[in-house]
Amino acid sequence: MNIAAAQSGGPTCAINASLVGVFSEALKTPQIDAVFGSINGIEGIINDDLVDLKRMIRTNEDMELLKQTPSTILGSCRYKLPDIETDGAEELYQKIIACLDRHRIEAFFYIGGNDSMDTVEKLSEYALNIGSRIRFVGIPKTIDNDLPVTDHTPGFGSAAKYVNVTVQEIIRDSSVYSIDSVTIIEIMGRHAGWLAASTCVLRTNDETAPHLIYLPESDFDADRFLEDVRAERAKHKAVIAVVSEGIELEAGGMRSGMVDNFGHKYLSGVGNVLENLVREEIGCKVRSIELNVMQRCSSHICSAVDISEAERIGAAAVRAAMEGKTGVTMVFRRLSDKPYVVTIEPADTSLLANKEKLFPKEWITASKNQVSDEAVKYFLPLIMGEVNIAMKNGLPLHFKIR
Amino acid sequence: MNIAAAQSGGPTCAINASLVGVFSEALKTPQIDAVFGSINGIEGIINDDLVDLKRMIRTNEDMELLKQTPSTILGSCRYKLPDIETDGAEELYQKIIACLDRHRIEAFFYIGGNDSMDTVEKLSEYALNIGSRIRFVGIPKTIDNDLPVTDHTPGFGSAAKYVNVTVQEIIRDSSVYSIDSVTIIEIMGRHAGWLAASTCVLRTNDETAPHLIYLPESDFDADRFLEDVRAERAKHKAVIAVVSEGIELEAGGMRSGMVDNFGHKYLSGVGNVLENLVREEIGCKVRSIELNVMQRCSSHICSAVDISEAERIGAAAVRAAMEGKTGVTMVFRRLSDKPYVVTIEPADTSLLANKEKLFPKEWITASKNQVSDEAVKYFLPLIMGEVNIAMKNGLPLHFKIR
Repeated sequence: MNIAAAQSGGPTCAINASLVGVFSEALKTPQIDAVFGSINGIEGIINDDLVDLKRMIRTNEDMELLKQTPSTILGSCRYKLPDIETDGAEELYQKIIACLDRHRIEAFFYIGGNDSMDTVEKLSEYALNIGSRIRFVGIPKTIDNDLPVTDHTPGFGSAAKYVNVTVQEIIRDSSVYSIDSVTIIEIMGRHAGWLAASTCVLRTNDETAPHLIYLPESDFDADRFLEDVRAERAKHKAVIAVVSEGIELEAGGMRSGMVDNFGHKYLSGVGNVLENLVREEIGCKVRSIELNVMQRCSSHICSAVDISEAERIGAAAVRAAMEGKTGVTMVFRRLSDKPYVVTIEPADTSLLANKEKLFPKEWITASKNQVSDEAVKYFLPLIMGEVNIAMKNGLPLHFKIR
Repeated sequence: MNIAAAQSGGPTCAINASLVGVFSEALKTPQIDAVFGSINGIEGIINDDLVDLKRMIRTNEDMELLKQTPSTILGSCRYKLPDIETDGAEELYQKIIACLDRHRIEAFFYIGGNDSMDTVEKLSEYALNIGSRIRFVGIPKTIDNDLPVTDHTPGFGSAAKYVNVTVQEIIRDSSVYSIDSVTIIEIMGRHAGWLAASTCVLRTNDETAPHLIYLPESDFDADRFLEDVRAERAKHKAVIAVVSEGIELEAGGMRSGMVDNFGHKYLSGVGNVLENLVREEIGCKVRSIELNVMQRCSSHICSAVDISEAERIGAAAVRAAMEGKTGVTMVFRRLSDKPYVVTIEPADTSLLANKEKLFPKEWITASKNQVSDEAVKYFLPLIMGEVNIAMKNGLPLHFKIR
């Protein structure tokens, strides 16, 4: 039998490590012959655009390089498979199954977020209904950490490590001048505040900053924000506020958006909007910093725990498929924070597909501008350890298709 | 005799290493007793705000931590010493000399950029004129690399390494989707394009991007920029353009600035402005990324060559002062690119003070959107090597005053 893997959704530092996990476990499994990679997620199956991974990943060194290469070596997509009831959808499903059959692919592994798990669920159900033996297994990944059931998602730990390392450096940077200042740091996460909240781990290294943390889960209010900043300015020369990109400014009494040179509305980030608010209402020195895509691709400072777990969960997915499991997504279950122990288990994909896990309200302080020490215990193990990155000419070596 | 050191201007990753260089060389010099740190640059001397560095830096481990801590442990300032002819200036100069005399400080080391070298020049001249034996020695630092005489400036190599590592990761990030895109990366450097130009070293690791590099030295033109982008889009799915923050948009036919929620003009970065231009005129998927202060404070990926040189140039400054030199700034002279060999020499501070060294026009290609391989030879040695960073709880340990 052959197998295939695909990668989908936004890039992370760990998504290639999960592919390595699938690939290396397949090499160890005598029943598996070819391992195909599907180019640009499920689109590669629809368009019959597959590569032979054994020709692409040739040596152990290739595997090591791939694990330290951010983003997705097989490309990605933002493709939502239509419901089987939709007009013309059944032909699409048939086309997918036909492509897999043609290449004798009996197990398909989809590394991705919410949308990819939706695809896994739909295809596994369809395959069961038509009596196909093809198995579909999901492997989670997202820096947003917003998937339910699993303790956390591969890719999140590396993003959180980058964010914390960088916020710590910005704390140093903001402390140099004798003049008082406010620094607003905007962090990714869509509707979920996990990544912004993770900056609470800086406490463990005796940092008092960030002084304020605003999450989408904590109901933003512009007036309260200004009060908070004024109160922190009374205590600290250089106030650091972390804001999640998903906070709802309009519900909190603000307008977002600016008008550019051409008179068109320009959707600026929340950090920018809050920077202007502080300048206007408080009038002190203020700057906003967006950590941007560096949060999802800075593999040079990835978390060793994250990369190792991403590889292990990929390998576990292959074992689950070999046991006949389909319509499942592999998840982490945490047994203990200290020592940190997780197991990997299959879960029914319907429990994850199209569902979001938000940051727990009980970990947000009553002031709605900080998170509790319970959150520190959760986050800390995920950012531990460094990967020994292979370098050339002063720069990390990335895996490239030859 | 005692000595004092101060740090000034914008933070870098190497400015604390130069302080360690001064401190550790002083420990080895039997004639030197106390080593003072002046808080917030020359302001610390004016306000008699000094710390005893031997009480602050107590162990070898402290020195190692300080070398991996970004920004300035002694704080900084943006203070321009008035000319001696200015009304009331002589009193200020007298106050400075009186403070130094009171603490038996016979040598003052100023780690900084253009403005700090101006201070070194003025104070050394004044001291000579009044027959004071106090020596003033400049130690260069700036991520902008825009100081003349010296081959390069401490702090630049680490900034260039961060920028190159990050641009390489953004190249991976931008390549995932099947849809064509343009990514514009805005890089610091004020009026000088050195840091943006340094991304040419990615060639040595077989990267074809950045496809376009725009420097303040290459006369920006909006129409030519759009032509360039269109031409690269015909060749590459994901076009990467690097722009120096100092390019002159208005001279090139553009307006910068946006109007915010309050109707006030908001000075947006050049990356943002060019992003909107591409969206408006070409209509493709486009994003802009500002690397922001991370360029000057990301010590977790600093250049080992830079940190080591920063320490050595600090130590050399102490030796120069002990030889009686004053009104000098220590500079690097490069003897060879490969093997990379530099010497450290004193140069007359008047040759550096208030002067700017721009990126050489002869290294800009005729198309004005790229730099030549000569530049690669210049930049490459400066980003070499990694510092083994001490970590705690998954994060770099920073030196903190106890």
